[in-house]
Formats: sequence, C-alpha cells, structure tokens
Amino acid sequence: MAQKGDLLSFRPDIKVLDATIRDGGLVNDFYFTDEFIKDLYQTNVKAGVDYMEFGYRADKEMFDVDKFGKWKFASDEHIREIVGENDTDLKLAIMADVGRCNYKEDIHDRSESPLDLIRVATYVNTMPAAIDMIEDAKRKGYEVTCNIMAISNAKESDIATALEMLGKSCVDGIYIVDSFGSLFPEQIRKIADQYLEVGEKYGKYIGMHAHNNQQLAFANTIEACAQGVSYLDATMSGMGRGAGNCAIELLLGFLKNPKYKLFPVVQFIEKQMVPLLESGIEWGFDIPYMITGHLNQHPRAAIAAMKEGRKDYTEFYKEIIDKD
Amino acid sequence: MAQKGDLLSFRPDIKVLDATIRDGGLVNDFYFTDEFIKDLYQTNVKAGVDYMEFGYRADKEMFDVDKFGKWKFASDEHIREIVGENDTDLKLAIMADVGRCNYKEDIHDRSESPLDLIRVATYVNTMPAAIDMIEDAKRKGYEVTCNIMAISNAKESDIATALEMLGKSCVDGIYIVDSFGSLFPEQIRKIADQYLEVGEKYGKYIGMHAHNNQQLAFANTIEACAQGVSYLDATMSGMGRGAGNCAIELLLGFLKNPKYKLFPVVQFIEKQMVPLLESGIEWGFDIPYMITGHLNQHPRAAIAAMKEGRKDYTEFYKEIIDKD
Repeated sequence: MAQKGDLLSFRPDIKVLDATIRDGGLVNDFYFTDEFIKDLYQTNVKAGVDYMEFGYRADKEMFDVDKFGKWKFASDEHIREIVGENDTDLKLAIMADVGRCNYKEDIHDRSESPLDLIRVATYVNTMPAAIDMIEDAKRKGYEVTCNIMAISNAKESDIATALEMLGKSCVDGIYIVDSFGSLFPEQIRKIADQYLEVGEKYGKYIGMHAHNNQQLAFANTIEACAQGVSYLDATMSGMGRGAGNCAIELLLGFLKNPKYKLFPVVQFIEKQMVPLLESGIEWGFDIPYMITGHLNQHPRAAIAAMKEGRKDYTEFYKEIIDKD
Repeated sequence: MAQKGDLLSFRPDIKVLDATIRDGGLVNDFYFTDEFIKDLYQTNVKAGVDYMEFGYRADKEMFDVDKFGKWKFASDEHIREIVGENDTDLKLAIMADVGRCNYKEDIHDRSESPLDLIRVATYVNTMPAAIDMIEDAKRKGYEVTCNIMAISNAKESDIATALEMLGKSCVDGIYIVDSFGSLFPEQIRKIADQYLEVGEKYGKYIGMHAHNNQQLAFANTIEACAQGVSYLDATMSGMGRGAGNCAIELLLGFLKNPKYKLFPVVQFIEKQMVPLLESGIEWGFDIPYMITGHLNQHPRAAIAAMKEGRKDYTEFYKEIIDKD
C-alpha cells in the first residue's frame, strides 16, 4: 500500500497508548509507587496521550497477590484511587490475558468502571477463548481490542484465519504484536498490509505493539504507522519486558499532531524514570535480547541471563544455538 | 523504487564497512590500545566484514599529536604494524576530512600503502575542495568514496548539485550521511532514491552512514539497503560520536550473505567492548541526543551535557529550545 500521511501534516486517526505500567510492570513485578502512577497519569494527560493502560487484570486465584504489585490485578478501585472520575480526555485501559483472567467476574459493566478499553491478549491457537472474552467485554459496554501475540512464530495462514475470526467478531481494533522483537521493517509493512486489508473489510482499526530486541521498536512502530496502522503502543523510556518497547518520547517527537507534547514526558523521565533505572530496575537493548530476537525466540533465556548479570555473551550465544 | 532483495536471499553488491576506530575514536580521542586494534582487525577478518576504517588522517600541523591517540592520524606505518601485508580479503580505509588533511603530502601512492580506500568527508559547501581530494586519491591509485555530511540541514537543490558534481568526478561511491541522527526511514528512502538515481546515471555505488539519536541507525541502514544502497557503515556496539552508529552486530544479524559471521563479533563485544564501556567511555542513545536529533541539530550540546553527567533533561531541553 502507498504511504499514509507525510512528515509535515498529521493523521487524526493516530492514537497513542501508554503501556508503561503493563509492559513495564513485567520488569519490576508491578511494584510501582502510587506517586509514580499518579505522576504518569498526569503526564499522559498533559502530553496528549490518548490511552493509558493500567496493568493486567490477572486472576487472583492463579497469581499470588503477595508476590506482585497491585497493577498486575489493576482493580477498578485501585484505578479510581489514581484517577478519581477521570475528568480528562485520556482514556483508560487494562489488558486481559486469555487463560489468566477471570473476566466474567472481574471485569464489571463499563457504567461501574473507570475503564474505557479492554485489551484482550491471545496467541493464535486460543482464538475462540479470545473471542469469548471480546464478546463479554463488548456486552459490558467497552471498546475492545485484541493483541495476537508472537506472530513471528505463527504461520501466515493461521494468522489469516485468526484475522478473519476477529473481523467477524465485535472487536474494535486488532494489534500487530512483535513479541520477540524479531521482525524487520520490511516484514512489518507486509504484515500491516495484511491486517489493514482485514481492517478495511470489517471496519476495524489496526494497532502496533513493538519490542526493541533489535533496536527496531520505534522504527517498526512508525513504519506500521506510515502503512496506515493507527493505534501505537509506547512506554516511558521504552520500559518493558526484556529489551523494552517503543519509547514514547521518540514517538511523540515523531508525531505532528499539535495535541502531543514532548516536554511533560521529558520531565517525567527526569523525575521518575532516571531514579527507577538508578534503583537497579533493568530493561532495554542488550546483546542477549538481540540474540533471542535474531533467532526469533521468546526472550525468557535472555531475561534470565540479564538477571544473573551475565556478560559472557559468547557462552550465552552458544547455549541458545545449542537449544535449537 | 521497488525493494531490492528479500529476507531469504542475499545481494552480492552489499559491503559492510567497520568504522569503529574512526567514529568510535571521536568518543575516546582515538586512544585505543594496539591489542584492541589487532583484535578488531582479526575479528573483522573472521566476521567477513568487507572494509575496516583505521581512523582519520588528520593534519599534524593542525592537530596536536600529544592530545590524541595515533588513529586520528592513522599513518601507513601504524596501520602496517597491525596488519602486516594484510594478506586477507578485508580492505583497509581511512577518512580524510576536507580542510583537516594535508592529503597531497600525507596520502601516499597506493603501491606504498596498506590502504585500499580513501573516504573523503565534506560538507555540501566545500565540494570543490572535496573533488580535488578525490582526484588526488584516485590518481594515487585508490578506491575513493565521498561522504556528504549533515545533509539533513542542506537544501535538496544543493544536494542535487553536489551529487551531479560527484557524478561527473572520478569518485567510486557516494555516501548518505545522517550526521545529526535526525532522519526517519521515510526520508531515508527518498534520499536513497535521489542518490541511487545519480549513482545509476554515472556508475557510482551508494553508501549509508547513520547515527542513533532517535534509535534509528540500524533501521535507516537496512531501509537504505532495501532501496538499493550497497555500502553500509557500522561499528562494534554502535560505538561512535554521541548516540553512536549502526551496531555491526545488528547489521550482520540482518544480512544473509553466508560470508558474514555474527559469532566473532559477539566474542569481540564480550572481550573488548564491555570492558571499554565499564572503563567509563560513554556513547549510545540518551535523552539529550534524542533532543538534538529531534531538533535536527549538531549533537555537540548533547555531548557536552553527557560529559558533565547531566541528568536534568528538562533544563537541557529548555536551553536547546531557547537557542533556536
């Protein structure tokens, strides 16, 4: 498809979603201070960010509430403590994972919740469960998106089938997710075309969620955008699992809609993200993440290596190659 | 133009140039140990890298030899001490800056030198001096390229004039240089088309030299490559001025020519680059570099801020905006 938009004008269909708590929470087990979350919320409002994701709504029967910060379970009550009535233009979201969320009970009617958007995350092989969650959330009054994860390991024909299922569902938007950070811009453009075709056929918008294993999270996000993808995930300082995500400061610097402001984000990074990094919380590009990304693997081995402080990249590479 | 090549095959016209000593030398004033340089040379040979740039050949009348390591002056003698007769497939290069190199005296006949390639670096407004240097190097028997620097600040019409001058000269290749790390992939594609058109008309190859201020050095390099650009600059761990360059480990992971080997590069990073970083030598993406890149400015203010260890990004942003 031809490029959508140019570098001097802006497309009003573009929406930015801040996923710092949710994807960043995977780095610090969701132990953010309330002060951090409040500051993040106010920063997103000032910066003109469109959506803020408050975490997962994980099933408390499956996950020990004593082993994670509260944003892994992101209850309506905890969100309300931060946002009050949320009398702003910022819409609020949570993520609900297939198989890890007791959605029928834990997701309440929108009229009783501060939330606007439910983001259902699934693998290609659990689409029927995802569709059930999507229908449930839609019935309760929410905007609903679906993230199909780990597509770099899925067959094109399976992705096509999943997209058709979603096209025919009541979902509002469908996300391209490069879980392993293994995709190159030329692949992203083709995948975006495939998703956008389904989106146009069924009236769904398309989103992009990128990882930085090969230093391509920002590039893949703006390349998807240039193809016509309109919902763009990003996080403060790129905070997110492993190599992290598309940095919101880069994305807001790129987008031309005058409602987006870079300055409050720079303030937030100075005030909150620099101390977080200095406290020893680690994420971002490093050789082990590059190697798993390069080999199109889940970053778990790289995350483990980084946690152990390993710098023996050569041994790590040999181990990973050996596992293939 | 249509994409050149795909992700499964390889283009034999692609050449990788390791610029670690030259661009990385800007970070540590060219004080590399001989052991580092020897290891780098052997790594490049093992990794199948096509060219290795040994530094600048700066004019010793202009620059104090006591204030810089020897690779700022990269003499034939010092290079010979590392490579001997260079009985390998790796070609050797130096960079010669317009106005900072006494080329008539300091660049000797190729028959007396270990070098294969002279890289002439110029701004758009010093093209006649660059052409004189190109002709001098060509007469002495070298392959010659020309880097037109800081093009993000130059007018398209001036770039077109410069390209025509180079097209009609005896230069072998012309480099796109994103000195400020301010260009996005969609701009790189257009610029690559412009350069490639001249290249096809006059029989010159086109190269890419990227900077990482917006985490786009690797992305811009492979996007230029997909447009048909064939000479790709990269450095170990992205070492280079300010935010650094395209990381050679990412580039070799992307390229499919079986002659390129990632493993020796990972070994080199573990053995040489990790200790270099731990010794306090600093480069790579950070907010001040993002801000100068975003504003299409030379990174010198950001480099100064980083040297002072400043983390007051907000104040830095205000200062830079104020200077505009």
